[in-house]
Amino acid sequence: MKEVAIIGIGMTDWGELWEKSLRDISVEAALKCLDDAGVSKVDAITIGCMSGGLFNAQEHLGSLVADYLGQRFVPATRVESACASGGLAVKTAYMEVASGLAEYALAIGVEKMTDVDGNEATYALATAADQDYEAFHGITFPGLYAMMAKAHMKKYGTTLEQLSQVTVKNHDNGSLNPHAQFPCKFTLEQVMNSTMVADPLRLLHCSPITDGGAAVLLAPVEIAKKLNKPYAVITGIGHATDTIALAQRKDILKLEVVEQAAQRALKMAGKTIKDVSFAEVHDCFTIAEIMVMEAIGLVEPGKAGPAVMDGLTALTGKFPINPSGGLKSKGHPVGATGVAQVVEAVAQLRGEAGKRQVKNARIAMTQNMGGSGGSSIIHILEARS
Amino acid sequence: MKEVAIIGIGMTDWGELWEKSLRDISVEAALKCLDDAGVSKVDAITIGCMSGGLFNAQEHLGSLVADYLGQRFVPATRVESACASGGLAVKTAYMEVASGLAEYALAIGVEKMTDVDGNEATYALATAADQDYEAFHGITFPGLYAMMAKAHMKKYGTTLEQLSQVTVKNHDNGSLNPHAQFPCKFTLEQVMNSTMVADPLRLLHCSPITDGGAAVLLAPVEIAKKLNKPYAVITGIGHATDTIALAQRKDILKLEVVEQAAQRALKMAGKTIKDVSFAEVHDCFTIAEIMVMEAIGLVEPGKAGPAVMDGLTALTGKFPINPSGGLKSKGHPVGATGVAQVVEAVAQLRGEAGKRQVKNARIAMTQNMGGSGGSSIIHILEARS
Repeated sequence: MKEVAIIGIGMTDWGELWEKSLRDISVEAALKCLDDAGVSKVDAITIGCMSGGLFNAQEHLGSLVADYLGQRFVPATRVESACASGGLAVKTAYMEVASGLAEYALAIGVEKMTDVDGNEATYALATAADQDYEAFHGITFPGLYAMMAKAHMKKYGTTLEQLSQVTVKNHDNGSLNPHAQFPCKFTLEQVMNSTMVADPLRLLHCSPITDGGAAVLLAPVEIAKKLNKPYAVITGIGHATDTIALAQRKDILKLEVVEQAAQRALKMAGKTIKDVSFAEVHDCFTIAEIMVMEAIGLVEPGKAGPAVMDGLTALTGKFPINPSGGLKSKGHPVGATGVAQVVEAVAQLRGEAGKRQVKNARIAMTQNMGGSGGSSIIHILEARS
Repeated sequence: MKEVAIIGIGMTDWGELWEKSLRDISVEAALKCLDDAGVSKVDAITIGCMSGGLFNAQEHLGSLVADYLGQRFVPATRVESACASGGLAVKTAYMEVASGLAEYALAIGVEKMTDVDGNEATYALATAADQDYEAFHGITFPGLYAMMAKAHMKKYGTTLEQLSQVTVKNHDNGSLNPHAQFPCKFTLEQVMNSTMVADPLRLLHCSPITDGGAAVLLAPVEIAKKLNKPYAVITGIGHATDTIALAQRKDILKLEVVEQAAQRALKMAGKTIKDVSFAEVHDCFTIAEIMVMEAIGLVEPGKAGPAVMDGLTALTGKFPINPSGGLKSKGHPVGATGVAQVVEAVAQLRGEAGKRQVKNARIAMTQNMGGSGGSSIIHILEARS
């Protein structure tokens, strides 16, 4: 299989970007990425966006962005897998290059979520759940993840303190990220006493509603070699699906979709989880980060909570998770998240992550998830220079 | 580049499928395709669907369909390029195989448009136009295509009779297609006197609102060779974008996006339009078929209207267009259309199109379009046995 490199990265500031439209945000992220790569013309564009239709009454985003980016006539593909749309955009760009259809393939992730009010945003997000068997009956994602958290607490003794420590850690990291929506720190007490959303999940266990974009440029490794600067190579891709309805899983304590995706990605890269230096994972709710740690094989089932308390996943720990601040602190413009995870991974692998630099970052894992574990896309990235 | 074959095809009946849900339709098309291929397990699924969000409050369709199709854990990607989403699903499945990530890649196209009323459907479809500069101000697709038709009539002398003959021809063909939504014939007079929609376009110049699904199974050609039955090979893919706002085109009489896509597809296949036996094209409005004939190089600009009257594109003509009945007669469930075009092309190339069989069908072109020409995906398919 053709080796594919990432030769450019870019992202916008994340937050409530009232003054910028969906197309503005997409183009800004893409231009920053092209500037980083020193490339002006691409052969293919892929865009991860969960629901331009429901958030912005705008589908057909591929063509729109190609045009406004000055890349008219360039093939552009919008992909969607709920909150894993960004990871899917990177995978699809990989296929553009690996299939030989394109040399320079730009993957953009974007979501502009504040054009609608909170109820409408919750409705839009709930279309990632099973409409007929979940959303229609009134449950939305905080409720679904709350059930997973309750079950995890009951079976493994996972505590509110452990769920909260994930928040503290991710905000510690996010406070070092200039692009983060909420670069503020919290104490364990503040998190544990924040407003209840869906028992046991409180406000500060939930990722926010965010506007933002991110982009990465892929090319055959032969092109990257000529650039005379550090770059990253995608050596593993794992993509899997599961039932989108939580009620239809055999075991809601196991994110089998992540397990499958991680095994596939590591196998393709010829690595084990022990070889990986750090990971960006999908902490849409802090219980998700706990469960992902178990599903990727970092710790045994039930051991993630204590491991977080022990500092395993802190920036200075043995296996840093979410050095970017994660979805919790950096923000979660759903379609952009998977691409931004790759942006962070590449910045780390190039040694350009500033104050949040992970020491000896050589191999990264990015784990992006759709819904309550209905889909997941995992990339393994390796540093090259 | 790896040669990729199409080893299975399937589609549902098209129409107002009140008794079937979005997932039912997707699964029915996919199962028919897998039955046709004699394959039970696939490695990747791609789904073309324009707006599950706006039509059905259901995003995350990849995972939903993988699950209901009995393909849990299989990677599934939903792609969207407005009404060209189906063509994009086929291209993306091609990339799954050509990149080496998958052997058996299933492409499904689906749309369930009658879960909402006519106004809501028009609103949903208009999100394929530029929301900020077109749709928000009140114009929808019949109006956009009407402007193109008016301009074509003014510059080239194209007549209402010529626009109407496209309808007559496509319904003649569609009357032979058991899956068609409207398998009835019309006289030129009936078409010309039908209800006005957007001057000069009348009801019978417009494709309908449809529920339906279609699916094709792709695999490396080495696998197809072992099947001992006729199959088709994808030898050319052309994918292009243009401005989605009609007002931003240099010339609204030229579908440059189709011109670009056709040239790319033919170049990749090493063919010219003269080598092609027949085509399925995107006649969302009959003026579109006229303009596509010119854009793919079949006739000079302005000559398509007279060519239709002369029977060039009739089922028994030199270059049959839309033997299936096209969007006009077969129906237009937007995300399914591009896949169904490939289903028809393969059926023709295998010599299994029954009463609507094109004689000596060896090389087919399928042309799928998004919006008013904001995107187009063209495939060149060749018969093998």
